[in-house]
Amino acid sequence: VSRGTALDVAAAQRAVFARIDVRLEADIERVQEFVRQPSISAEDRGIRECAALLRDYLAALGCDPAEIVETGGHPVVYGERWVGAPRTLLIYLMYDTQPVSGETWSVPPLEGRIVEQPPFGRCLVARGAKNSKGPLRAFLNAVEAIEEATGSLPVNLLFVAEGEEELGSPNLPGFVERYADRLARADAMLHPYALQEPDGRVLIWPGTKGLLYVEVEASGERWGRGPRAYDIHASQKAIVDNPAWRLVSALASLVSDDGNTVTLDGFHDTVRPPTAAEEAAVVTLAETFSIEPFRQLWQVDRFLDEETTLGLLRRYFFAPTLNLDGIWGGYTGPGSKTVLPHKATAKLDMRLVPNQGKDEILAKLRRHLDVRGYADLDVRLLGGGEWSQTAPDAPIVRAAVGGLRDLGVEPEVWPRNVGFFPGYVFNRPPLALPFCAAGLGHGGRAHSPDEYFVLDGNDKVYGLAGCEKSYAAMVFYYAAGDQ
Amino acid sequence: VSRGTALDVAAAQRAVFARIDVRLEADIERVQEFVRQPSISAEDRGIRECAALLRDYLAALGCDPAEIVETGGHPVVYGERWVGAPRTLLIYLMYDTQPVSGETWSVPPLEGRIVEQPPFGRCLVARGAKNSKGPLRAFLNAVEAIEEATGSLPVNLLFVAEGEEELGSPNLPGFVERYADRLARADAMLHPYALQEPDGRVLIWPGTKGLLYVEVEASGERWGRGPRAYDIHASQKAIVDNPAWRLVSALASLVSDDGNTVTLDGFHDTVRPPTAAEEAAVVTLAETFSIEPFRQLWQVDRFLDEETTLGLLRRYFFAPTLNLDGIWGGYTGPGSKTVLPHKATAKLDMRLVPNQGKDEILAKLRRHLDVRGYADLDVRLLGGGEWSQTAPDAPIVRAAVGGLRDLGVEPEVWPRNVGFFPGYVFNRPPLALPFCAAGLGHGGRAHSPDEYFVLDGNDKVYGLAGCEKSYAAMVFYYAAGDQ
Repeated sequence: VSRGTALDVAAAQRAVFARIDVRLEADIERVQEFVRQPSISAEDRGIRECAALLRDYLAALGCDPAEIVETGGHPVVYGERWVGAPRTLLIYLMYDTQPVSGETWSVPPLEGRIVEQPPFGRCLVARGAKNSKGPLRAFLNAVEAIEEATGSLPVNLLFVAEGEEELGSPNLPGFVERYADRLARADAMLHPYALQEPDGRVLIWPGTKGLLYVEVEASGERWGRGPRAYDIHASQKAIVDNPAWRLVSALASLVSDDGNTVTLDGFHDTVRPPTAAEEAAVVTLAETFSIEPFRQLWQVDRFLDEETTLGLLRRYFFAPTLNLDGIWGGYTGPGSKTVLPHKATAKLDMRLVPNQGKDEILAKLRRHLDVRGYADLDVRLLGGGEWSQTAPDAPIVRAAVGGLRDLGVEPEVWPRNVGFFPGYVFNRPPLALPFCAAGLGHGGRAHSPDEYFVLDGNDKVYGLAGCEKSYAAMVFYYAAGDQ
Repeated sequence: VSRGTALDVAAAQRAVFARIDVRLEADIERVQEFVRQPSISAEDRGIRECAALLRDYLAALGCDPAEIVETGGHPVVYGERWVGAPRTLLIYLMYDTQPVSGETWSVPPLEGRIVEQPPFGRCLVARGAKNSKGPLRAFLNAVEAIEEATGSLPVNLLFVAEGEEELGSPNLPGFVERYADRLARADAMLHPYALQEPDGRVLIWPGTKGLLYVEVEASGERWGRGPRAYDIHASQKAIVDNPAWRLVSALASLVSDDGNTVTLDGFHDTVRPPTAAEEAAVVTLAETFSIEPFRQLWQVDRFLDEETTLGLLRRYFFAPTLNLDGIWGGYTGPGSKTVLPHKATAKLDMRLVPNQGKDEILAKLRRHLDVRGYADLDVRLLGGGEWSQTAPDAPIVRAAVGGLRDLGVEPEVWPRNVGFFPGYVFNRPPLALPFCAAGLGHGGRAHSPDEYFVLDGNDKVYGLAGCEKSYAAMVFYYAAGDQ
């Protein structure tokens, strides 16, 4: 890009930033309004109303169409803001939230209450504040500010907002397939989020691990051995098989004795080595990364491979895992009651890396058990999704890095998110879009009581204005196309 | 014994049986009175009052002393009925019961309600009815009937009734030690119980397996690896150890893959082979024993070694076991929540045979874990006791067999009870008494709602009168001394 164009962009961006500062208090109210509208997908609470509200927001932005698209479940809200720009971004959003029932909050969770919360200043404390209705509305605010300050948009925007992210996005792939022709006009996907840690560190995620979540159960009923119907007296162990022992022995075959190497047959067969760009991202990240905040946060004395930061990070991002999330069976109360359980159950989650497939690994788990004589063990698929991956030096990632640098931060480009979100739906065919999740701002306690999103900010983390500016800056950088 | 003496005994016994028939309705009321007095040891509910009531019963029988003996916990009720007979029996009783709180009963559990319960006729439905206040009071009724019908007793009786059986008899060994001089006058111990199955089969137990009950826990806190304080997000598995995997792998080292052979180091070292008498008892039992009622009761399709009855029974009585009673950790609710647990816990019970020691096996478990690097696993002793064993052809057992035959039944002499009761306290030094548990009558649902004890009986099981007659007959047989 020519220096002249860069100057134009810089001027436009300055105007947008100024506009965002002017809008701030009104933008806070816009975020409050959005979180006040319940949208709890698991309970089908307020979903329709929230979809309608979001559709109205998109229409007000000038989207045409701005529509509610029916799926087999909760609707997708779809909007196109086509300005004839050379580049087009697909903006992936979610408008649903986790439930609040049974939780104890210090404020009513759906009132959009603003609370002074040191060291962050004012915070919005509400369900969805951080995950992700706060960032969603912040992005719309940023788009409005761009249009107000510059009279146009530097890119075309295609908005896809689903109402089932917290349910595992069951209908998102179907929607993308039906809308593939329209969505294929996008050059990349951006998921605007608030990825700033309390210490000021900023993450960019150009990928996610895949996720396979299953329940495995051993039972006398399916086994044909052991008690069929209920837990029996433990003295019968001498002549009665124990399904809980069966589960333990099957589980033990899945990992090494220390639980840290997966021994499920063929689990690693399709793992591809990190690319040069992924490896380079880790090497760069290792220069600044510190495990200490994690040691504090997770209360872990010692991490695997923490002898070197590079070794630790390679394992963190590139190693697929098989975790035992939960296990239960028999008598689990206080004191001693001697029973021989009629069944026992475990929950397992597997975090998959390129090129492991969810269905592939599920089939391998089934085969691993069958080959060892555990054909009677019930394997129930509870959820998950595929990994996704954009090169850490792809244009959309470089745009994010550039945009965030304009706000004075040096982001950490993680090779991928070690958690999961359904980036694969856009990253895989038919769209095969490069993507990343990025954005300034900070929030916390997602999926927990007193979820919050920082409005004011401090010397380490940006508040709502900084979040909106980061979205605008990334859009400008992507539009400028010098990446 | 001379034929003349046998005839005298038969005549006396006939008189006692007739007296028991006359007393029946009054005896039912005596049992009702006793179960109406709560004696829930775990909740210290009614224990003192029940001990006083029992002391009065023993005094009314002519016991001198009849006393409440303090221990560190609930008192022992002790009574001596010394008649100058050549033989002396120690009668082991328990006056405490399981709780009822939180249970749903069809009748008030402490009212001593009589319920018509096909096919058994009238049954007493109450906590303690079968385990063991019904049999206890039935034994006292039988002793009264003997004295009423014959003017004396054929043996001296030493009554030891504890109030902590349901708590693992923590103070019974101490009591026996303090009273050893007096108790050492006994020639044998009898535990009067109602050991008749619904199909009419009658068991005699001249021993019990030992019991060791422990809780084993893996935790990040003790390990120094994994999450120290709470369950963390499962995506961290890549660089964080999982205490639940650690527990699974430690547990898997304790048994064979099928869970049926104990591989705990040295577990079998002190197991002595069955004696000729124990083996003979199993061979005799195999002639009549059927596993079918157990298949029905426990809802088990296939038992271990059931190809031959002898093989099955050898395993049942002679094999020590290591059972997984319960296991829990992490997320155990519905659906998928991805967590890396900070701890996981298992309950294990071991059933020990001669000459395995409870402390010996506990130490071996600790060593087994330590040797494999699991020194951080917490092993908590929850309870148990030693095995006990009297030769299946000992005089006290032959007396029980003879007495029960007089009631027209052919008892099954099991080499030992596969469950547990604290017979070892009397069977081991300082007393080293031979013993057995025996008696006609039937009850059920011990430790469960609607516990019952049959009063009328039918063509298969005896009611209260038959139970009392069996106690009297066993006492006469033991006194006659022809065994």
